[in-house]
Amino acid sequence: MTNQDLILLGHGGGGVLTHRLIAECIAPALKNPILEQMDDAACFPAPGRNLVFTTDSFVVDPVFFPGGDIGTLAACGTLNDLAMQGAKPFYLTLGLILEEGFPVADLKRVIRSLADAAHSIGVQVVAGDTKVVERGKGGGIYINTSGLGVRSPRTSVHVANAKPGDAVIVTGTIGDHGMAVMSRRQGLEFETALESDVAVLWPMVEPLLKALGPALHVLRDPTRGGVTAALCDIAEAATCGVRIRQRAVPVTPAVKGACGLLGLDPLNVANEGKAVVVCAPEAAEQALEILRRTPLGKNAVRIGTVTDRHPGAVVLETEIGGERRLAMPAGEELPRIC
Amino acid sequence: MTNQDLILLGHGGGGVLTHRLIAECIAPALKNPILEQMDDAACFPAPGRNLVFTTDSFVVDPVFFPGGDIGTLAACGTLNDLAMQGAKPFYLTLGLILEEGFPVADLKRVIRSLADAAHSIGVQVVAGDTKVVERGKGGGIYINTSGLGVRSPRTSVHVANAKPGDAVIVTGTIGDHGMAVMSRRQGLEFETALESDVAVLWPMVEPLLKALGPALHVLRDPTRGGVTAALCDIAEAATCGVRIRQRAVPVTPAVKGACGLLGLDPLNVANEGKAVVVCAPEAAEQALEILRRTPLGKNAVRIGTVTDRHPGAVVLETEIGGERRLAMPAGEELPRIC
Repeated sequence: MTNQDLILLGHGGGGVLTHRLIAECIAPALKNPILEQMDDAACFPAPGRNLVFTTDSFVVDPVFFPGGDIGTLAACGTLNDLAMQGAKPFYLTLGLILEEGFPVADLKRVIRSLADAAHSIGVQVVAGDTKVVERGKGGGIYINTSGLGVRSPRTSVHVANAKPGDAVIVTGTIGDHGMAVMSRRQGLEFETALESDVAVLWPMVEPLLKALGPALHVLRDPTRGGVTAALCDIAEAATCGVRIRQRAVPVTPAVKGACGLLGLDPLNVANEGKAVVVCAPEAAEQALEILRRTPLGKNAVRIGTVTDRHPGAVVLETEIGGERRLAMPAGEELPRIC
Repeated sequence: MTNQDLILLGHGGGGVLTHRLIAECIAPALKNPILEQMDDAACFPAPGRNLVFTTDSFVVDPVFFPGGDIGTLAACGTLNDLAMQGAKPFYLTLGLILEEGFPVADLKRVIRSLADAAHSIGVQVVAGDTKVVERGKGGGIYINTSGLGVRSPRTSVHVANAKPGDAVIVTGTIGDHGMAVMSRRQGLEFETALESDVAVLWPMVEPLLKALGPALHVLRDPTRGGVTAALCDIAEAATCGVRIRQRAVPVTPAVKGACGLLGLDPLNVANEGKAVVVCAPEAAEQALEILRRTPLGKNAVRIGTVTDRHPGAVVLETEIGGERRLAMPAGEELPRIC
């Protein structure tokens, strides 16, 4: 590998090298008329009245993992934050922090993954920035994406909007992303059976928003902290209790096995292609039907109910008939999962 | 210093520790109704029809430097990118990548600086994200900010909008930011006389936009790569030549001295509180008057002219009467300056 194949400090200096890196390795994959103005900011007409604006940084280790890479994740994570507000994603920005010595070929591959995920729902990357830090001051590549979307004025999904009696649904098996990353990081044997679920959720969310209208109360993507953190957020924000049945929670045998080996609870493990859906009880069957018709939601299942008992608390009804309160994970179990 | 005073990996895990860090160290300084929804994305009405969207990551080393810190820089850099499009800044997002072991007190100080700069022009930080990487995988703190602003439909400032005959103005002395950072990094003696010019440019830009209207052609902040890179961008985008007089370029004695010692050209050194202004020749005097009435623009001066000679090239008329073509800096001279 020659020096030309690796990121140099000068690639972040804002001069000739930066321009060349962007022109050769970044812009081609992201090609669109707004970005091509190549100004320091993107100008465009407001895509709608009710805007949704979000940001996320991605530091996942390793950069490439079974089922995706940091580029897929950086697009999906931010696009999904918009979708979880009921917002159609329109635009992304891309902030790169590269470590000196990172392979240019890997950068191209990551940008291609990011572009593919964004373009799959017609989202354009309209502005970007590239910085380079010295060897030993980074993790190969860190990515920030910010996203801008638009939501219908009729949408009222919000984490505080859960109501006693509501159905709690997950849109598929849980823990896949976290265990895929962990397995690659630890070089575990069961690696081959584990694959991240990283995916753009909007195509699954859009028909749900349209069909359920105001009966759809909460959408939440169970990323860091897993389903447990998502449910704790909902219980706290809505001052309701949440009860889920362990038996109903879908987990693949591979994730269950890996979690057992590492002493992790799948409920606490990150997902990047799933949603927790809370809706009015009378809409629950319709929600499941709609979700199961989409490729991402084919394993959707109801796992529990919102209750006015124990406000603020999430309670698991265990497989052996007991009850256990789920606490917000401390956050130490799975560092750098996204 | 106890462990509680330092950033831990768990602060980035998305659980209890992350929530506590945000609630205690980040949210209080940024307090506003949109952020307080504490959802994964911020929802608000579109602040105008013509949106401007930008992103920037900040990796400056050292984190604290004479005249500011990475927080000041992270606010000003992105707000100024909006202002340079003629856009009034409205909203910021804040993406933090913290290194395990970074002092919590330093984080609070940085967030305070960022909030002060944003609030000085009524901008709110409406969404954020916090990640933590292991010791030796970061630089203490890296910050990404994305910004959303609105520009008047009558504004046509654009880097390609320079026309032969236009006046080229800089709004004050150049090279201050870059040399302040370099001096602190290298522990140079002349450090005391050097201070970054980092500042929010909108209060200087707003009256200029209003008064000059379509006679204002280009606004560009000469950050990485300095005035040279800004002028090269203009010459290339507008397919014009730019001629500047070295004698007219304002440089403090301290910056001149430090540049001499380090073998740097002040024209290539980063600024964070200056603008390059290109306007119709008949508006040049008015532009200078307006700029000089603002605190940030009091040393504004015309340094040159756009020409139809040598399209794409920037030519310096030297103090000794010669001519020298200025090339886009390679980008290697001053790494991690912002």
